[in-house]
Amino acid sequence: MTAAGAGISGEDSLIARYFKPLATDPGAFDLGDDAAALKALGEDIVVTTDAIVEGVHFLSDDPPDTIARKALRVNLSDLAAKGATPAGFVLTLALRAADDRWLAPFARGLGEDAAQFGCPLLGGDTVSTPGPLMISITAFGRAPAGKMVHRSGAKPGDRVMVTGTIGDAALGLDVLRAGATAAVLADDAAAREMLVGRYRIPQPRNALAKAVRAHASAAMDVSDGLAGDLAKLCAASCVSATIDAQSIPLSAAAAALLARGTVDIATIVSGGDDYEILCAIPENRFEAFAREAGIAGVAVTSIGAVIEGTSAPRVLDTQGRELVLNRLSYNHF
Amino acid sequence: MTAAGAGISGEDSLIARYFKPLATDPGAFDLGDDAAALKALGEDIVVTTDAIVEGVHFLSDDPPDTIARKALRVNLSDLAAKGATPAGFVLTLALRAADDRWLAPFARGLGEDAAQFGCPLLGGDTVSTPGPLMISITAFGRAPAGKMVHRSGAKPGDRVMVTGTIGDAALGLDVLRAGATAAVLADDAAAREMLVGRYRIPQPRNALAKAVRAHASAAMDVSDGLAGDLAKLCAASCVSATIDAQSIPLSAAAAALLARGTVDIATIVSGGDDYEILCAIPENRFEAFAREAGIAGVAVTSIGAVIEGTSAPRVLDTQGRELVLNRLSYNHF
Repeated sequence: MTAAGAGISGEDSLIARYFKPLATDPGAFDLGDDAAALKALGEDIVVTTDAIVEGVHFLSDDPPDTIARKALRVNLSDLAAKGATPAGFVLTLALRAADDRWLAPFARGLGEDAAQFGCPLLGGDTVSTPGPLMISITAFGRAPAGKMVHRSGAKPGDRVMVTGTIGDAALGLDVLRAGATAAVLADDAAAREMLVGRYRIPQPRNALAKAVRAHASAAMDVSDGLAGDLAKLCAASCVSATIDAQSIPLSAAAAALLARGTVDIATIVSGGDDYEILCAIPENRFEAFAREAGIAGVAVTSIGAVIEGTSAPRVLDTQGRELVLNRLSYNHF
Repeated sequence: MTAAGAGISGEDSLIARYFKPLATDPGAFDLGDDAAALKALGEDIVVTTDAIVEGVHFLSDDPPDTIARKALRVNLSDLAAKGATPAGFVLTLALRAADDRWLAPFARGLGEDAAQFGCPLLGGDTVSTPGPLMISITAFGRAPAGKMVHRSGAKPGDRVMVTGTIGDAALGLDVLRAGATAAVLADDAAAREMLVGRYRIPQPRNALAKAVRAHASAAMDVSDGLAGDLAKLCAASCVSATIDAQSIPLSAAAAALLARGTVDIATIVSGGDDYEILCAIPENRFEAFAREAGIAGVAVTSIGAVIEGTSAPRVLDTQGRELVLNRLSYNHF
């Protein structure tokens, strides 16, 4: 949103019209400079970056305001899992054209989320592309020095916990793609809408960041599927884990689809786009963590235990049999 | 480079192989986490972001290592103009495929520049796209609290100064596009190579950052053409300026092309991709600034003066006549 890489007439007026109102932080200098200045206040600046691409992370006909929200929220979700408080973000927007009908709702959705999550726009860049739309966001958070929560740190005996419900977003994508889920839910508009909403608009658990920082031995957000992301957390922590499939928190819609056999649990645990927090909580921290989660209004569920070992985490069914997962997570290449 | 948005097999191994060696800062956590932690050390974190797109900011057949260098250097150039010392960067890479023949030299060039400019990789994201390659970088610098240099602040009477030479990169692009420049320089491989090098590999003036911070009343980097960028600096400072066309620093190649009439001065001052620093220096700071620039090994040239007024800055020829510029700078939309 700075003028770097910009032209005077087109991009600058686009920025002034749509994005300047989002730059509420004094360090953004009203997007009128080449850089922003972030005050550190003695804390570490936690930096995360995630891009979403048309046709890969969102669909061409997704409403522009939900695309904007998703672009910001996937980054907010990382900050939450790292125990950091949002401080601001910069935006790179690759567009085919400066289309007001698309930009106006996009900027509105982005601005509403920036305000809601206390994460103002600090700057950015708009570029033209003949290819798919792409929104790349780098988000900043603050955490007390050295207190960012890592993927590493989980210890045998810790509880494995997740927030919210798992699998809804992947089912929502299946609805949008007119898959089996859409057919089964043909008469249940409310369930379809809920699932699609979970795909389009993640619910980052920033309200839980402080509790994660206070109690988690390790944490990350679940963006590429619970099974694969748990494998990453375990690998970083040099541990393994067992997960009780039965205890994985599901929405009523997902549970019904599972009961009907429309999807299996393997699909649920390898589906992407959950944007829930996965964390390891030492047993002696569990009560405090659960209490603080309750106060924050975020549902948390114990789904298994960290164990010794370096083998991939196992997901066990009600009979204690290990689920065979053909894929652990979404893979871009 | 974090695993956010990533798959286990493809992206993670790509990151480990090519980008982990660039993550030399302890706050990058070897790219094994979802975020980086940037120590602030009591200073402001200066944040800038610039993306480059295949076919727009670089050409498909540009060598991958020069594409990497350009992507980082356009951001380093912003940090230099803001008087900030590089601290690190995050990278979003949108690729059509994970091609080792492209990625290996790309990562090598990026790593060499990261080391040279003291700007380590802190994290990032790789995504697949069917469209043009895009490299989006958010770079961080440090500046003493409140001391970032702004576009605003230029005062009537200040000298207008630029580093290096102006117009070479635009001429280099004309060479690559087999324009008039290429024809005229058909027998001068050295000149062609120099101009193309200026287009492909900007020379950010980070060595001058401290002097800019100490002496400039306003500064920005020249990325979209000197005339247009000066207009932006003047607008932000609520001043105008007059530029003596004769004093604009040119390379020998550009001067020869101008003398032959292959290009006119209007093209030189509206060409993009210079990545020089444009700044306003109060008269009583000029000597110290020039001395420090000499010590830093960066050529600086006075090209005009800041004056009162709100009209667009004027570029005057040797007879004092105003040049008519059809366009001030490059415009994406």
